[in-house]
Amino acid sequence: MATQGQFITCKAAVAWEANKPLVIEDVQVAPPQAGEVRVKILFTALCHTDAYTWSGKDPEGLFPCILGHEAAGIVESVGEGVTEVQPGDHVIPCYQAECRECKSCKSGKTNLCGKVRAATGVGIMMNDRKTRFSIKGKPIYHFMGTSTFSQYTVVHDVSVAKIDPTAPLEKVCLLGCGVPTGLGAVWNTAKVEAGSIVAIFGLGTIGLAVAEGAKAAGASRIIGIDIDRKKFDRAKDFGVTEFVNPKEHDEPIQQLLMDLTDGGVDYSFECIGNVSVMRAALECCHKGWGTSVIVGVAASGQEMSTRPFQLVTGRVWKGTAFGGFKSRSQVPLLVDKYLKKEIKIDEYITHKRTLAEMNEAFDLLHEGSCLRCVLDMHVVSSLDFI
Amino acid sequence: MATQGQFITCKAAVAWEANKPLVIEDVQVAPPQAGEVRVKILFTALCHTDAYTWSGKDPEGLFPCILGHEAAGIVESVGEGVTEVQPGDHVIPCYQAECRECKSCKSGKTNLCGKVRAATGVGIMMNDRKTRFSIKGKPIYHFMGTSTFSQYTVVHDVSVAKIDPTAPLEKVCLLGCGVPTGLGAVWNTAKVEAGSIVAIFGLGTIGLAVAEGAKAAGASRIIGIDIDRKKFDRAKDFGVTEFVNPKEHDEPIQQLLMDLTDGGVDYSFECIGNVSVMRAALECCHKGWGTSVIVGVAASGQEMSTRPFQLVTGRVWKGTAFGGFKSRSQVPLLVDKYLKKEIKIDEYITHKRTLAEMNEAFDLLHEGSCLRCVLDMHVVSSLDFI
Repeated sequence: MATQGQFITCKAAVAWEANKPLVIEDVQVAPPQAGEVRVKILFTALCHTDAYTWSGKDPEGLFPCILGHEAAGIVESVGEGVTEVQPGDHVIPCYQAECRECKSCKSGKTNLCGKVRAATGVGIMMNDRKTRFSIKGKPIYHFMGTSTFSQYTVVHDVSVAKIDPTAPLEKVCLLGCGVPTGLGAVWNTAKVEAGSIVAIFGLGTIGLAVAEGAKAAGASRIIGIDIDRKKFDRAKDFGVTEFVNPKEHDEPIQQLLMDLTDGGVDYSFECIGNVSVMRAALECCHKGWGTSVIVGVAASGQEMSTRPFQLVTGRVWKGTAFGGFKSRSQVPLLVDKYLKKEIKIDEYITHKRTLAEMNEAFDLLHEGSCLRCVLDMHVVSSLDFI
Repeated sequence: MATQGQFITCKAAVAWEANKPLVIEDVQVAPPQAGEVRVKILFTALCHTDAYTWSGKDPEGLFPCILGHEAAGIVESVGEGVTEVQPGDHVIPCYQAECRECKSCKSGKTNLCGKVRAATGVGIMMNDRKTRFSIKGKPIYHFMGTSTFSQYTVVHDVSVAKIDPTAPLEKVCLLGCGVPTGLGAVWNTAKVEAGSIVAIFGLGTIGLAVAEGAKAAGASRIIGIDIDRKKFDRAKDFGVTEFVNPKEHDEPIQQLLMDLTDGGVDYSFECIGNVSVMRAALECCHKGWGTSVIVGVAASGQEMSTRPFQLVTGRVWKGTAFGGFKSRSQVPLLVDKYLKKEIKIDEYITHKRTLAEMNEAFDLLHEGSCLRCVLDMHVVSSLDFI
């Protein structure tokens, strides 16, 4: 390709500082170094983790940076030693790497590869501990090892999943974060069995993916809990069978759920990131076996608590990151499942915008009606494209 | 038997009020009613749960009562409908019942039978919701459904395990609580695999039983943590391979253990009942798979806490009661294991006393050198026996 080995100047939404509108800038994207892959991002969605870091509440957030971690694109060029993808491959960038060599990857017990975390955690690339993004020579930090709010990005080769080229990128971009997180929380972390009673706290994208996963696992009752009753109608389409609004009841939600389920649910999922709800999600579980999985991400510094008696009497407290899926190995399988119509994606996409409308897309994220807003990164719009 | 159907007057250590010395009294023990078994207790040990309730800190503690829950004896008579034991059978009373009929027993997921809990939790028998103990007509409450600090006690038939009559009762009485709790925490709750790195917080009876269980499971390293360095020598005999005294280090114990183990232990066990230690026990676990099991019983009202990030990054927080063993089914199997020398019991018995020396035995429980003190309930001593 003509661009190979060259800097590419393209448009990106840059977060110059916390809580200030993103600015569409001309960004220079350096060529990939050893073990790196440069990807032309075609579609990206927004996720609450982007908004959390943007808000400035994330103590690890670094500015200026390019956010974004739920996307799909095409490999533009690869650095030295990269063998598993090549230019033209359709890919999904993965914020959770999979190197297949580290202690975690080889454990057979977790998807939490640690190979590039020390670099991605501080917004740089591992090879030279520098960024590949700059504006007029000023470095712009990476985010989560993905930075998909740019028309081109550079990622580590252990952080990119090669997928079926026939898959529509404007849809499967969602397999970069929220949908796999919810499905995997059910299938990999909780391992819900047929006939189980399931409670889901929070009916956003992740909560709905949990519902979809629980339905596929054969759960007999799927109870959705949300303070917005309007979300229930949509949730039914994803498998939720009953709805509880804690605001409509005086008694604590955990007690209410225990009464509704003859002693508690078999599995509960916290899909909000609220430490009080995490406690309720644990305590609504059945004595002796009920398992609660934390899926939501709490604000930094917050702590969750409960009485030890809750665990001594047999409840189990777990959590999940990216639903326990091994990213490079399993994201392509999820794409295949979508193509075979075994999992939903289209139904989560409630809004579509362009890169130029990034700030509007952030606003949408906070509206109850919005699940996922997908941005077309290259459509001609108000942007002055290169 | 001559006593069948009659009240029996015998000696018992009565806790008249919290935190006051127990008094050896002549107690009237009523005959067993339907579904009940009267047991002649020959040997009982003391456990920290007895001391906790005696101290008055247990809000569910009822006085006057007869404490004790780690014992062995012989069935004296049985009530109507009791078929699984008969007079003369050697038995271990079980504070955790097993009815084999309730939702929990049939779940295949827990040992926490709920059949008689509503009665035993308030110190009475289920049949008529009254006590079988009295002194001059004044009812004396039961404790944990066992009340083994009496020469005769009455228990529910679902709360008594029939054991091999050749087993020495002065030894196997320990299988009523502490030893199975520690072994089962490893074998049933954590399911420790060969090669695992294990951390044990607290090297009392339960901690040592955890070590024994971990050694049997093939753990590669068994790290004992205690603030009393003297306990280490004894702990080696139970399988502990390394010792850490948190007081000898400035850094937090969880950090120290992570440094010692290349990122954390595979399994940790809290065997103290201290909520701060519970947190440390979780946080010293390896990211991605480390599992922490709460075995110790915290004081009422205390809460444990941590950052949700600890669970989202793959640690699992669990607890265990009676080590997950189904009491009536599995205590006899543990007795058999002892007879085949597959598990230790003798080594936990550091002191022997008689019923008359009950208060001294309580004092011993707080000494670091004492693991278990076994009381002979019928030896002629300073007591004026009937």
